[in-house]
Amino acid sequence: MKLTHLAVFAAVTSCALASAFVAHASDTESKVASPIYGVTIPDGYRQWQLIAPAQEAAPLNELRAVLGNAIAVRAYRDGTLPFPDGTVLAKLAWKHVSSPEFEPATIPGAATTVQFMVKDSNKYAATGGWGFGRFVDGKPADEAQHRTCFACHQARVKNRDFVFTRWAP
Amino acid sequence: MKLTHLAVFAAVTSCALASAFVAHASDTESKVASPIYGVTIPDGYRQWQLIAPAQEAAPLNELRAVLGNAIAVRAYRDGTLPFPDGTVLAKLAWKHVSSPEFEPATIPGAATTVQFMVKDSNKYAATGGWGFGRFVDGKPADEAQHRTCFACHQARVKNRDFVFTRWAP
Repeated sequence: MKLTHLAVFAAVTSCALASAFVAHASDTESKVASPIYGVTIPDGYRQWQLIAPAQEAAPLNELRAVLGNAIAVRAYRDGTLPFPDGTVLAKLAWKHVSSPEFEPATIPGAATTVQFMVKDSNKYAATGGWGFGRFVDGKPADEAQHRTCFACHQARVKNRDFVFTRWAP
Repeated sequence: MKLTHLAVFAAVTSCALASAFVAHASDTESKVASPIYGVTIPDGYRQWQLIAPAQEAAPLNELRAVLGNAIAVRAYRDGTLPFPDGTVLAKLAWKHVSSPEFEPATIPGAATTVQFMVKDSNKYAATGGWGFGRFVDGKPADEAQHRTCFACHQARVKNRDFVFTRWAP
């Protein structure tokens, strides 16, 4: 009975149950740092508190969830801007797929990227105090991709300490 | 400077900063139980771990996030079905709105409902072991709405212990 349930779970999500728990759990396997910034995947980030979900239209077609470490959550809660050093935000992304059981719903499919913003006002003084890391399957994206991070955040959300995500009420 | 940032934050989210933290934080204010099931809003559920985000099309047009208590997270992680007694799942929902800073993104607007599934195989034996609670602004929805919960879960996801949401990898 239990195995049947597992088989259904695994088949319908189109990825094995085991991989479901490691795709974003690279915290334990890889410590390769992002180019430019030297950001690594923080341990245990998948357990962090939810800041907000989001959805991204074509061409990405993704569901997102931004999680924050304890310093980040406190800053959101207190309305602290700029975010204090030690803040880390994690953005998890998945392809969005239709729920096989409930047509109006869109749910996470395969994991795509996991991205981090790390606040260190000294180390990252040249980029608003933020270091960036974008990872695919636990491996950092290339330098060219990392060059785009701060430029976009700076152009669009400089007045909120370069952070797009707001707390979901 | 800090006040300016707060003003921008509050204005753009179209709800006061204070209310942003209480809309779903009714855990501390209301202990009114849901009809039929007697489910109340659990303390601290907003701090629970993310199971998965979701998006719901028209007419609801919502972003969702399902969070789980520690028993729920462990069951997902271990692939335990049926879920053990003590499992609680929380589904937070918000109207989805366009990001004012990044057109392709859809982000949470006003909170709409927060819903709970509580596993107690004795107390809720007649409904698959699950009690349901749907709350709007901390107040339970009416009995007619609560009559629809189990019927739909039973019709569509009986083979996964009546739970729609899968773990987001």
